[in-house]
This record gives sequence, C-alpha cells and structure tokens, in this order.
Amino acid sequence: MYIKLEKNERIDDLEYKGLKIVQNTEGFCFGMDSVLLSDFAKKIKANSTVVDLGTGTGIIGILLSAKTKAKKIIGIEIQKNVYEMAKKSVKINNLEEKFKIINDDIKNINMYIKNNSIDVVVTNPPYKKKDCGLTNYNETKLISRHEIKCTLEDIIKQSTKILKSQGEFYLVHRPERVPDIIELLRKYKLEPKTMKVVYSKISKPAKLILIKAIKNGRPFLEIEKPLIIYNEDGTYTEELLRTYNKI
Amino acid sequence: MYIKLEKNERIDDLEYKGLKIVQNTEGFCFGMDSVLLSDFAKKIKANSTVVDLGTGTGIIGILLSAKTKAKKIIGIEIQKNVYEMAKKSVKINNLEEKFKIINDDIKNINMYIKNNSIDVVVTNPPYKKKDCGLTNYNETKLISRHEIKCTLEDIIKQSTKILKSQGEFYLVHRPERVPDIIELLRKYKLEPKTMKVVYSKISKPAKLILIKAIKNGRPFLEIEKPLIIYNEDGTYTEELLRTYNKI
Repeated sequence: MYIKLEKNERIDDLEYKGLKIVQNTEGFCFGMDSVLLSDFAKKIKANSTVVDLGTGTGIIGILLSAKTKAKKIIGIEIQKNVYEMAKKSVKINNLEEKFKIINDDIKNINMYIKNNSIDVVVTNPPYKKKDCGLTNYNETKLISRHEIKCTLEDIIKQSTKILKSQGEFYLVHRPERVPDIIELLRKYKLEPKTMKVVYSKISKPAKLILIKAIKNGRPFLEIEKPLIIYNEDGTYTEELLRTYNKI
Repeated sequence: MYIKLEKNERIDDLEYKGLKIVQNTEGFCFGMDSVLLSDFAKKIKANSTVVDLGTGTGIIGILLSAKTKAKKIIGIEIQKNVYEMAKKSVKINNLEEKFKIINDDIKNINMYIKNNSIDVVVTNPPYKKKDCGLTNYNETKLISRHEIKCTLEDIIKQSTKILKSQGEFYLVHRPERVPDIIELLRKYKLEPKTMKVVYSKISKPAKLILIKAIKNGRPFLEIEKPLIIYNEDGTYTEELLRTYNKI
C-alpha cells in the first residue's frame, strides 16, 4: 500500500484493533470528544447506515467501523486537505468498502443522500460561535473549531432531513450550548432522549455533553450516569479507560 | 403560642437552627428536592425579595429565611389546607414579618405582586404531566405532584412577569423534563445559566436537576459539579450531608 503524506502529516496508532489515523500535527488533531462520541453511539443497530457530518480526519467513522456492525458509514467534510487525510486513513485501515468520504459542504448533502433514508447521524461539530473566543489559529483549526462554514442549526437541519423517522442523532458538544442544542433539536423534530454529562473530575464543572435524539421521538430525557475523566489524584478513571478500551 | 393541629398533622424538627415545620402524614411531605433547591439558591443577594411559587408547606421559604439574608419571602399556595399548614409553620418559627403566604392560584399573582418587581423566584413545581403516572393518591398529593392546577408553562410565564430584568429563577425538577424546561424558559426570556445534576449514586442515572435562569440573561450554561446522594455502600456522601448542614 502506498500512502503519500504531506508536510506535517503523520500516521498515529489508535491502539485499538490495529486501527491507524493520518493527522497533521499543525492542524486539528482528534480529541477525547470523538472517542467519547463513538463510544456513546456504539449501540447502534447492526446494518445501520451512518452519516458523520463534518467528519474531519474520519476518527469517528473509523472507530464506529470497529465498535459497531454498521453496514455503511458516510462522512462529509468541507475542507479539502482534511478530507484528503481522511481518505488516506480509510485506505490504511482497509475500510474503502464500508466508509465513504465526501468532500463538500453539508448544505449540499442532498446531492449525495436522499431525504429520510439514514438510520444514524453522528457529529462532533465546531463548538464555538463564529465571533467567540480566540481566532488566532491557522485556518484549518479555525474551521474545525468555530462555526464559520456551518452553524449548529445547519447541522441539525441537515441531519433531520436525511434521517428516517425514529432515526438516531448523536452529538458531542460543550455544556454551555445545551440550551441552543435542545431548542434547535426540537425545532427540527429531533427529540432529546439521552444525555451524558462528562466531568473532568467529580469536583469540577462539566466539560462535555453527549446527546442522543430520536427523530419524531416521544419526549422523555434520561440523563445517564456521569462520566468522570480523572480521579482526584489525576489518574484516569476506570470508566474512561474502558471507553478507550484500555481495560 | 397556640397552634391548632388538624387530624394527621404533626410538627417536625428540621434539625437546623431550631426550625420546625407542620406536615400532614397523609399528605405531601417535603422531600430532599426542597432541601436541595434551597441550598442551590442560598447565594441570593442580601435584601432580595423572593417569591416561592407553589410554596406547599413552606419548607423552601423557611430554609431560605435561615440560609440567606433575603429581606422578604412571599409564598403562594393554591390548596387551602396546605396553605393553613404553611401559616402555622411561619408562626412557629416566628417568621411572620419576613415570610408571607398567600392562598390563591398563581395565575392571579398580579393581584398581589407587581410586574418586574421581584429579585428571585424559587419553585418546586409538580413534576408530572396531568395524565402521566399513577393517579391513585389522595387529592392533596395529586395536586402537589401532577400538573393539575398549573402547568410548568404557567409557572414559568408567571415567574418572568414578576421578575425584574436580571432577576433569578431557581427550579428543581426531573431530568426527563429538561427539554420542556429549557424550551419554556427561553420562550419566556429566562436564560438557563446554571444546571446541577443530582445522581442517587455515581453509577446511576440522574434523579433530579436544579436550574438557575436569569431574566434577559446572556446565553452560556454552566453545568456545575455533580451532586451524588449516596456512596456506593449506601451511606450519604459528604456533599449531601453538607447540604443538610450535618457536617
């Protein structure tokens, strides 16, 4: 197999079932949020068709291909250079049959995917509003972290379009956006059904939230048991290690 | 002092600063949710005017009168028999000057309280929708637990009316209603600012949520460190005991 790496690109070992990923050390590298999201979504049904909106380097699709019996995974990524890396990772992991990557704006999703046809959408979108926070990164990091190319509403709107009724939507995001998330999910008929709050320590405020919504679902939210990342002494908790398949 | 107790009524010791409360053993007795809510709201500013919507036996107002420097607390309770108990508790605790109880429907709140005049609203409303769950209790329990006399929307609508701009709204409720709560808060310009998730054990789903919202606040939710009620061995956690002023 021949994989051409660009400047600053490297192949990282995911230390799980031999999986690897191509990342750019100067760009946006995958984080714990993607690992937690793929773990949160791992109970999706066998033979599901999954779409990853804003797939980045493809980390979520790669992990889901190993953790689930999904039939097909489609990732859509707007940034050409990031899309190229995702393609390389698909190739390295021999996932060409299962995991397709599209290089386009999610607003054009209907050029590739029919309405009401998808079982599951997963997404780890940019967390910050366009004008919030520091914007002194390079362009790739900026687009991955801020709502420049697409907003949360764009993502939710496109998700509900392509999902079947009773289809599942999985999101990882920041706690501060929970009211926006819930309001938008309901606006687009995605009913929040499960939320998991991720705390860095038991003595600290939440860092991340994971939400599962069901298209046309009945209202009733369960807030699952908390996920604590670190013990008070700074070591990883057992549950976090389990999420990373370390125990 | 002469306090006439009705059938099944008794005076319970709150084991905090000598406070007592009148409850009916056949009716709805206060629970941990009221204690947690008054603790969650204990940082309200000195000299605040506080309204407790659906005050029940007055437990929240009694605890807030001891935990805060609120200038005035007004409770409104629709059920005559429950209102009478709250009045007795106010008398027993010598709180007549500070804690006023009104016996009326919260929909008539403008007969007593002007719009945009209140600093803080606290509420522990009925948790269940009208037609949800068992309804084989006696009438007092039914009205306290189910949205029979007022809905969540009635409470939020009345709260925003009487609150000043930047006034604070504190709610305890069930996790399953979080999407309804957030959607209604925003509909009525109460921006969710702080949420605390209460888990019975660290290994169990959430039991309760506490939410603070600010009228006309800027969007940004903090999810505070979790509150765990029981250790895995079934004893109370230190934090819960602290909430109860036991340590």
